[in-house]
Amino acid sequence: MSLTHEHPLHLEPKVREDARRRLLSVKGHVEGILKMLEGEPYCVDVLKQIKAVQGALDKVGEAVLKSHLEHHVASAAQRGDTDALVDELMEVLKYR
Amino acid sequence: MSLTHEHPLHLEPKVREDARRRLLSVKGHVEGILKMLEGEPYCVDVLKQIKAVQGALDKVGEAVLKSHLEHHVASAAQRGDTDALVDELMEVLKYR
Amino acid sequence: MSLTHEHPLHLEPKVREDARRRLLSVKGHVEGILKMLEGEPYCVDVLKQIKAVQGALDKVGEAVLKSHLEHHVASAAQRGDTDALVDELMEVLKYR
Amino acid sequence: MSLTHEHPLHLEPKVREDARRRLLSVKGHVEGILKMLEGEPYCVDVLKQIKAVQGALDKVGEAVLKSHLEHHVASAAQRGDTDALVDELMEVLKYR
Repeated sequence: MSLTHEHPLHLEPKVREDARRRLLSVKGHVEGILKMLEGEPYCVDVLKQIKAVQGALDKVGEAVLKSHLEHHVASAAQRGDTDALVDELMEVLKYR
Repeated sequence: MSLTHEHPLHLEPKVREDARRRLLSVKGHVEGILKMLEGEPYCVDVLKQIKAVQGALDKVGEAVLKSHLEHHVASAAQRGDTDALVDELMEVLKYR
Repeated sequence: MSLTHEHPLHLEPKVREDARRRLLSVKGHVEGILKMLEGEPYCVDVLKQIKAVQGALDKVGEAVLKSHLEHHVASAAQRGDTDALVDELMEVLKYR
Repeated sequence: MSLTHEHPLHLEPKVREDARRRLLSVKGHVEGILKMLEGEPYCVDVLKQIKAVQGALDKVGEAVLKSHLEHHVASAAQRGDTDALVDELMEVLKYR
């Protein structure tokens, strides 16, 4: 399954690299929780680790969002795609 | 780094197994986003995937929390550790 | 419309009073935002105020949740209503 | 306490009016919870009402955010205030 489609606008290379590094760290953290679950962990310890991973994912999301606002949304009026960009951004910012 | 400490109360085996399965799926999903980032993804596609991973992590957390409430918190009065259990649970439930 | 139903378990008086005070403050804050909106406010200023009210509501919720855990959930096993209490609590803790 | 400052950019009149209507409803809802708290409510009923008010506040925030993106952020590049607008928006979108 392709997780992306042809799109004229791309994630800035620097931010993409930063996101990759952060997600590699998130992956390692998830592997750490998986290792915990091989033993007899205490519920709250597992909850703490999940919360920490969520916080790390928030940071990746914030970096990507900031880049998107700066490089794409801020120039939407110039390109003429304000409605499309704002609608899809509102969709993804809605509470999960 | 040890992510757990000796604790008399443990995560129920069935829930632990369910959490493992879900986290293996989360790990796979994170690997999928890492693969996306090797290309030239669109920012919003990356944000959508991060949001999806967070939703999956929420589900793991909910399962663990439910088990903790049922098996440990609900019997805290009987064990006499109500204050300790409620305090640590409130700490982890606080907004990040 | 009655917002409550006959229930054997109640919110502790002290916590109820604290919640009342906090909600009176929240009401005043909402009235403040309404006053802002009579003028020509800047979007981000309005968003900041909404976020502040949300934070205050989080605090009311945390106080009520803590009391509920301490006074009702922790003794659920003793009363025999663990399943009912945990199910309804999980329902309200789910992300909105 | 003034909740606003002189700012060249304003919230669109239509959105401002919609926000006012929604916040009047939120205020009424808070008054309803205050009335609940004069009786002997059940904790979970109070939590449900708080969650409902927060959901309504989310909707106000979403409408204001959408308007801000459409009318101010999308034309930031044209005005030359991209950095300032994106920085302050990221600040308010951070998790509380």
